[in-house]
Amino acid sequence: MTHDSPYSMDLLINHITNLVTVRALGSRFKRGKEMTDIGLIRDGAVGIDNERIVFVGTSSDVDESRAKYVINGKGKTVTPGFVDSHTHLVFAGTREHEFSLRNAGASYAEIHRSGGGINNTVRATRSASKEELLRLSLHRLDTCLSFGTTTVEIKSGYGLTFEHEVKMLEVIQELRERHVLDVVSTCLGAHTIPFDYKDRRQDYIAMLLDQLIPYVAEHRLAEFVDVFCEEGAFSIDEGRSILQRAVDKGLGVKVHADQLTSLGGSRLAAEFGAVSADHLDHLSDEDIVAMKRSGTVAVVLPGVSLFLGLPMADARRLIEQGLPVAVATDANPGSCMSENIQLMMTVAGTMMHLTVEEIFTAVTLNAAAALRRSEILGSIEVGKQADLLIFDVPSYEMIPYHMGVNHLSCVIKRGRKVLDTMQEKFND
Amino acid sequence: MTHDSPYSMDLLINHITNLVTVRALGSRFKRGKEMTDIGLIRDGAVGIDNERIVFVGTSSDVDESRAKYVINGKGKTVTPGFVDSHTHLVFAGTREHEFSLRNAGASYAEIHRSGGGINNTVRATRSASKEELLRLSLHRLDTCLSFGTTTVEIKSGYGLTFEHEVKMLEVIQELRERHVLDVVSTCLGAHTIPFDYKDRRQDYIAMLLDQLIPYVAEHRLAEFVDVFCEEGAFSIDEGRSILQRAVDKGLGVKVHADQLTSLGGSRLAAEFGAVSADHLDHLSDEDIVAMKRSGTVAVVLPGVSLFLGLPMADARRLIEQGLPVAVATDANPGSCMSENIQLMMTVAGTMMHLTVEEIFTAVTLNAAAALRRSEILGSIEVGKQADLLIFDVPSYEMIPYHMGVNHLSCVIKRGRKVLDTMQEKFND
Repeated sequence: MTHDSPYSMDLLINHITNLVTVRALGSRFKRGKEMTDIGLIRDGAVGIDNERIVFVGTSSDVDESRAKYVINGKGKTVTPGFVDSHTHLVFAGTREHEFSLRNAGASYAEIHRSGGGINNTVRATRSASKEELLRLSLHRLDTCLSFGTTTVEIKSGYGLTFEHEVKMLEVIQELRERHVLDVVSTCLGAHTIPFDYKDRRQDYIAMLLDQLIPYVAEHRLAEFVDVFCEEGAFSIDEGRSILQRAVDKGLGVKVHADQLTSLGGSRLAAEFGAVSADHLDHLSDEDIVAMKRSGTVAVVLPGVSLFLGLPMADARRLIEQGLPVAVATDANPGSCMSENIQLMMTVAGTMMHLTVEEIFTAVTLNAAAALRRSEILGSIEVGKQADLLIFDVPSYEMIPYHMGVNHLSCVIKRGRKVLDTMQEKFND
Repeated sequence: MTHDSPYSMDLLINHITNLVTVRALGSRFKRGKEMTDIGLIRDGAVGIDNERIVFVGTSSDVDESRAKYVINGKGKTVTPGFVDSHTHLVFAGTREHEFSLRNAGASYAEIHRSGGGINNTVRATRSASKEELLRLSLHRLDTCLSFGTTTVEIKSGYGLTFEHEVKMLEVIQELRERHVLDVVSTCLGAHTIPFDYKDRRQDYIAMLLDQLIPYVAEHRLAEFVDVFCEEGAFSIDEGRSILQRAVDKGLGVKVHADQLTSLGGSRLAAEFGAVSADHLDHLSDEDIVAMKRSGTVAVVLPGVSLFLGLPMADARRLIEQGLPVAVATDANPGSCMSENIQLMMTVAGTMMHLTVEEIFTAVTLNAAAALRRSEILGSIEVGKQADLLIFDVPSYEMIPYHMGVNHLSCVIKRGRKVLDTMQEKFND
């Protein structure tokens, strides 16, 4: 690099004790054993200019005088911003009462059948105005950010009529304008058949195929279409027709697959070359082979199992068999009321048996790949968007190890500080 | 109450949407079904004078003009300060590397045998100065406080020589002087036989009996003596001689019981009328009956199971069979690196199937009873010490339900605000 001006970087973070780059080296994601390579640099340095990363290396390779502002990274760990690739963060009505019922013995299915469960959220979300949903969701994004999430996917799926699904997706669009986080929008009209379509199943699916998906595509209200393939939700054949319509309209696809039973959702995802199949609690070896062929990211959601008191997906096996695995929160009011991606990292270690290195890959590069964004996000490499986290610990292993305790001290989003508990002398 | 002065209260918290009193009504603890009674008051009020609670009731029963300062509790939940009745918070040397090894498949026992595990902490703690241990521990107490813990028990047990156990206990004493939290000290010289006594088991036990316990009693360095009864640690007979010496010297007793195997530690605890038996992953019906007779509190530690990826203690059964159950963190660097009592509350719900009401009783009144302090702590009642938490949520159920997210906005300790994110206009 040659430069005329004395400053070639807006910002330099220097002398970083542990710099976790998660270097992708041009790969879309890391699979299997590759997930253990987090590209750790000791005494590292990251240079940022405008919104991009312009230097990554060791402190000895960088000239501090070429940076406008310098942050001292001594004693700190720097990582890529976390990507939460699966959430349902736009909703009204929390369900804390069900939490107590379920803990006392009622099953998720029982609560659902008794008119509770998702129906409660659907009613509350339909009743809420866009302004109310926006207010609630902005606050939740602040919570995501406080744990280091810099990019979040949000699904619709609590409106479940044309009008209310569009309302949710418009709220998600507005969040993109109003919040510093990158927000990725997914249409999950195919979340469940809502109570008011109970006896008109085909009408609801026709609405999705003929009204909602075309409208979403035309108005660019979502980048992905997702289907919940499960007994009680949508069959594989129904899922196939919905995903086909999405693909025909130029949208990307995702599948809620094989969560409660082995229905074949993951193979359906593979059939469509979906960016991700999510949940994956019940996978056959054939399902895994199919996903490997299609390059579909396996998104596991340890918080759901923790929140519902259920066994964890066998993420260890998915990695051993060569899949790229991502970890996300599934933040939602019914099965995982948590925006805390760091807690999911810990539980991915303790209950899913991922190593710390695999965990970091799973919430950065692979999670970005699950949102088709790993070319610009998910690792600290020259040319990528400057989304960085600074943790006030010298060892990256401390982050998932210190369970339920948040060491995040600074978030840099698109090159600018958006959260800072360090009170570093850096302003612009 | 009649009063001459215009002010009869230093502080009044008024119009509290959910006031969780956990009223004890003179009982030492709540057992079985009683644990569901949290004494909820809607539109509640708590008056404080000096360090004590002087009024508990509804807002309509209180005269605001009689309070020097008033906090508006509308939209808030107020609970007793949480009591963390089982921690090992004084130590040097974290063990994040083992976290990764264990997640990748190494068992806790394998790590221990290979010279890792507790031996690492013992070496680091012996090497650390009192000043260093104090610095590390003060920071950890701040973390406890940030999650609402206002009273914490801390055990020795990483020194494991006379000299270094005394050093740890002196650090715990100094924490009592230096930190706003109430700190309760327990001597756990009988944590394990240390590596340097490997072939001199009887010498180590003799040191405990003849030197350490008498010295601790004489210098009032601890209130309780605890024994880890487990294969690889101390036998029941060894435990009995240690507890007998403690009782003879006027100290209270506790037992780490039946964690990994059903050795009989809980019955030993009952035999001595111990204030608590802790862990309790493997209890027989006879063990439970014995504990009921002796009035021993059953302390369960969900964070250990979460951190080690092990099955949870069957706390539901303990409650059904009529025991008083408390929940604690077991904060320690090897099997549960977490000061976050709120996370333990959530997991006690989702994985141990306690109701939200039982959870609140388990971290307040029953936890205070596990430290012989339920006459002054653990509930919001007239005459008790004014340790209160104000959460920025209108429903108490939200606190464990919102997993991994901390809604605590203000801590009042002995009548004074010690943590405040609300920026309430209250100063003294």
